[in-house]
Amino acid sequence: MSAYNELEARFARSAIVNDVIGLLGWDTETMMPKGAIEGRSDQMATLEDIGHELLTSSATAELIAAAAEEEAALSDWQTANLREMRRMHLRAAAIPRHLLLASTRANTLCQHAWQSARKDNDFKAVKGLLAEVVRLQREIGEAVGAALGLPPYDALLDQYDSGATEERIDALFAPVRAALPELIRRAVERQKQGPAIVPLAGPFPADRQEKLCRVLLDRLGFDFERGRLDVSAHPFTGGSFGDVRVTTRFSDETFLPALMATIHEGGHALYEQGRPRDWRSQPVGLAKGMAVHESQSMIMELQAAKTDSFLSYLLPLVRGEFGGTGPAWSDENLRRIVRRVEPDFIRVDADELTYPAHILVRYGLEKALISGDLPVDELPGGFGEAVAALLGLKVPDDRRGCLQDIHWYGGAYGYFPMYLVGAMVAAQLFDAARTARADLEPALAKGDFRPLVEWLRANIHGKGSLMDRDELVAAATGSPAGAGHFLKHLERRYLAV
Amino acid sequence: MSAYNELEARFARSAIVNDVIGLLGWDTETMMPKGAIEGRSDQMATLEDIGHELLTSSATAELIAAAAEEEAALSDWQTANLREMRRMHLRAAAIPRHLLLASTRANTLCQHAWQSARKDNDFKAVKGLLAEVVRLQREIGEAVGAALGLPPYDALLDQYDSGATEERIDALFAPVRAALPELIRRAVERQKQGPAIVPLAGPFPADRQEKLCRVLLDRLGFDFERGRLDVSAHPFTGGSFGDVRVTTRFSDETFLPALMATIHEGGHALYEQGRPRDWRSQPVGLAKGMAVHESQSMIMELQAAKTDSFLSYLLPLVRGEFGGTGPAWSDENLRRIVRRVEPDFIRVDADELTYPAHILVRYGLEKALISGDLPVDELPGGFGEAVAALLGLKVPDDRRGCLQDIHWYGGAYGYFPMYLVGAMVAAQLFDAARTARADLEPALAKGDFRPLVEWLRANIHGKGSLMDRDELVAAATGSPAGAGHFLKHLERRYLAV
Repeated sequence: MSAYNELEARFARSAIVNDVIGLLGWDTETMMPKGAIEGRSDQMATLEDIGHELLTSSATAELIAAAAEEEAALSDWQTANLREMRRMHLRAAAIPRHLLLASTRANTLCQHAWQSARKDNDFKAVKGLLAEVVRLQREIGEAVGAALGLPPYDALLDQYDSGATEERIDALFAPVRAALPELIRRAVERQKQGPAIVPLAGPFPADRQEKLCRVLLDRLGFDFERGRLDVSAHPFTGGSFGDVRVTTRFSDETFLPALMATIHEGGHALYEQGRPRDWRSQPVGLAKGMAVHESQSMIMELQAAKTDSFLSYLLPLVRGEFGGTGPAWSDENLRRIVRRVEPDFIRVDADELTYPAHILVRYGLEKALISGDLPVDELPGGFGEAVAALLGLKVPDDRRGCLQDIHWYGGAYGYFPMYLVGAMVAAQLFDAARTARADLEPALAKGDFRPLVEWLRANIHGKGSLMDRDELVAAATGSPAGAGHFLKHLERRYLAV
Repeated sequence: MSAYNELEARFARSAIVNDVIGLLGWDTETMMPKGAIEGRSDQMATLEDIGHELLTSSATAELIAAAAEEEAALSDWQTANLREMRRMHLRAAAIPRHLLLASTRANTLCQHAWQSARKDNDFKAVKGLLAEVVRLQREIGEAVGAALGLPPYDALLDQYDSGATEERIDALFAPVRAALPELIRRAVERQKQGPAIVPLAGPFPADRQEKLCRVLLDRLGFDFERGRLDVSAHPFTGGSFGDVRVTTRFSDETFLPALMATIHEGGHALYEQGRPRDWRSQPVGLAKGMAVHESQSMIMELQAAKTDSFLSYLLPLVRGEFGGTGPAWSDENLRRIVRRVEPDFIRVDADELTYPAHILVRYGLEKALISGDLPVDELPGGFGEAVAALLGLKVPDDRRGCLQDIHWYGGAYGYFPMYLVGAMVAAQLFDAARTARADLEPALAKGDFRPLVEWLRANIHGKGSLMDRDELVAAATGSPAGAGHFLKHLERRYLAV
C-alpha cells in the first residue's frame, strides 16, 4: 500500500471518530439525561484524545512526508486531500498535549461559570477564568502560528477559514463598517414613515410549528432518510453526511424564530448532506470551513427565505396553519415583521441589517483580547464603547453586553467574524445563483428550493474542501468574497422604495 | 506509575469506548434515520477495533505480566480487577484479527439474510450463511478454548458466564429437564378445571401504556436522572451506569406485554445503575455476565411482579388507567391472564412455565451445532424433534421453528442457556431476599420495590464482577445456583391449590 493510501485509511478512521463525537454532541443537547454529563465528558475527552493521537502521531508525520514523493501520481482530489491532511496534521501537532489539555479544561470551567455569571449579570465572577482562557488561546495561536508562519490571531482565524488573515478580513469588512451605521439609520427612518407593525397574537402551539418546520425542511430538500429534526435549548446542526441532525426550539408566543431557525439549520444540513459521497470520510470531502458553512445557512434564511417570491409561498402557509385573520395577518404586515429593523442589544435576536454591527463589535474586541491590547478587565467598557459607536446604543448591563454570548468563554476566538463573512458570501452566491438559474425565483414562489440547491450542490456542497474559500467563491461567482453584493442586497431590501 | 495503575488507565479507556458503542447501539434502534445504517456500521466497527486494540496490544500483555509482580500490594477489589483484566485480554488476544473480522462479517450478512428468510419461511435461503457462522464460531471457540484450556463450546459459554461449562450447565438443568414436561401437563390440566379466561377488549392507547410504564419504572427505583425510557421494535436495555436507556414497545391490542417488558428491562437497568460507582469504568465494576444480568430482569418480571402482593397493587392501577369494568377486569380474571400457561411455538411470547422448555430445546441443539454432531442442514428436523419431546407440539413451519430467533444467525452461541440460568438464579435470590427482608412482600403490595432493590444492591449490583457467578450466588443465598428454588417456585405458583 502506498503512503498516500495508508494516510487515507488513517484519516478515515479519524473522520469516523469525529462523526461519533458529533453524534454524542447531538445526544447531549437533545436526549441525554442530566445526570449523565460526567460520563459524557469522559466519553468526549477520550474520543477527542483518540482522534488527536491519530492526527499527530509520528507515524502520520512520516506517512505525510513519504506521500509527498508520490504526489506526481495523485489525482486533483487526492492532491487536495493530501494538502488538507498536512494542514490538519500541522495544526494539531503544533499544540503540545499539556497546552491542549490545559486549554480544554479552562474552557470547560469558564463556560460553566459563565452560565451563572450571565444569569447573575456578574462579570467579575468569571473574569479570572476568562483571562486564563484568553491566555491559553493566545498560547495556542502562538504555537500554531509558529508552525504555519502566522501571527497568533491569524492562526486562530485559520482554524475556521483556512487562509483567512486579520488583514484580509479587515479589508473585507471595511466597506461594511463604513456604510452600516448610515444604512441602519436610513432603514429605521424609512420604517418609521411606513404603517406601524401590528403584532401577532399567540399562542402558537408547538405541534403546529413543528409541522411547519417539517414542511419547510422537506421543501428545502432535506433528506429525512439521512437526518432528523428535534428540539434543543439552542438550535444547531449536528451529526454528519449520512446522518445529519437538525434542531430548533419553540415558544408559544411566537413562531417566526422557530421557522427561520429551521431554515437556517436546514442550510447547514444541506451542505453536510451534499458533501461529495466518495470523499465523505476524507479531509478533502469536509465542508470548507465555518465561513462557507455560515454562508449556506444564511443563503437559505436571509437570502432565499426573505425574498418576495418565497414569502408569497410562506405567508399563506403560516396563515392557514394558525388560522390567522385580520390586519396583523395581512401579507403586508407579515412582510414588515419578517424584515423589521430594530437596533438592540442581543446578537442572536438581531435582524439581518443590525446583525453585522454585532459582529464588528466582537471582531474588534477579540483581536485586542488576543493581542493583549485589551485586558480582560476592560472588556465591559470596551464592549460598551463599540456598541455605542456601531449601533448607537448604551449597553445597560453586562448581561446584555459582553456576557451575552458563549463563544469567548468557551475558547472560540476567530469564530465571530465567520458569521459576517458567511452573510457576505451568501449574498454573493445568491446573486450568482439567480443569474445562472432563471427558474430560481419562480420556484421559490412555489416553495421549491430545488434550482437553488442544485446550483449549490454543483458549486459549493459537492466541492468539499477541494479549494480554499476564496477560490471556491471565485469559481462559483467570478470573483473572491467581497462586500459589493452584500451592501447592494441590504440597500435593495431595506432602502429601495 | 505502577503497571497496575497503567492498566487501570488503559481499561478505563476501553470501558469508555464500550459505553459509546452501547450508546450508538441504542441510537441505532431508537433514533437513527434509516439511511444512516452504512455510516453507523463503520462507526461501530471502528470503535470495536479501537477497543480490541486496547485490549490485545503487546503493551497490555506486558503490563499484565508486570502487574502480577505487584499483586501482594493490591486490595481485594484490585486483585479481582486484575483477574478480570487478564481474562478479557486472554479471550480477546486468542482470536486472530482475520478470524474476528471474518466472523463479524459473516454474522452481519447472515443476520441480514435471516430477516427475509424468517418472513418468507425459507430456511434454505439462509442455511449456507448459517453454516459459515457456525463454522467461524466453532473456530473462535477452538481458539479461545486453546488459550483458556477449555473445549470450544465451553469457551463460548464462558464469554457470557465465566466459569460456566457444558458439564455444569447440564447438571444444573437436569432436574428441570426431568420435571418440566409433567409440571406443564399438570398446570395446563389444573387451569382447564378452573373458570375460563375472559379476554380483555382493547384498544389500549399507547400514551396510557407509556404513562403506566413510567410509573412502574419509578416504583422500581429506576433513576430517570441517569436514564431514559423510549420505544423500539424489540425491548432492550442499552447505555451503561450513568446513562441507562430502557426501551419497550406498545400494541393497541394488549397492554400487559409492554408493562412486563418494562419491568423486565427495568431489572436490567437497576443492575447497571447499581454497579459500584468507584469501579464503574473498570472490569471488576462490570455486571457479572449475562446469566446474572438475566436473573436481575427475571427477579423483577417473573418473581416480584407476579406475586399476589404486587398484583394487588398493579391490577387496580391498570383497571383505573383503562377504565376497565366487568368480569374481564376482575382481580381473579386478571391474575389468571398474568399467570396463564399455554404451550406454544414462539419463545419470546412464552409464559414462565413453558419458557424453560424453549431454552432446553435450543441449548441441546446449539451444543450439537458447535460440536458438529448436528449439520446445519438437519437443524429444522432436530428443532421439530426437540419441541415435540419437550413441549408436546408439532412445529408447523420453520418460521415458528428454528427461524424464529435472531441469536444463532447473529453468531450468539452459548447465550440461550443464560436465560434459564437467569430464571433459576432469580428464584433462588428472591427466596433469600424474602427471608432476609420481612418487609419485602408488604412493600410490594404497595408497589414499592425498595426492600428488594436494597437487598439486590447490597448482594448483587454493588458487587460488580468481584466474584464469579456461583460465588456471588452462594454469598447471597448460602449455596451456588441450583434447581431447587426454581422448581419449588413453579410448583407453588402453578400447582398449589
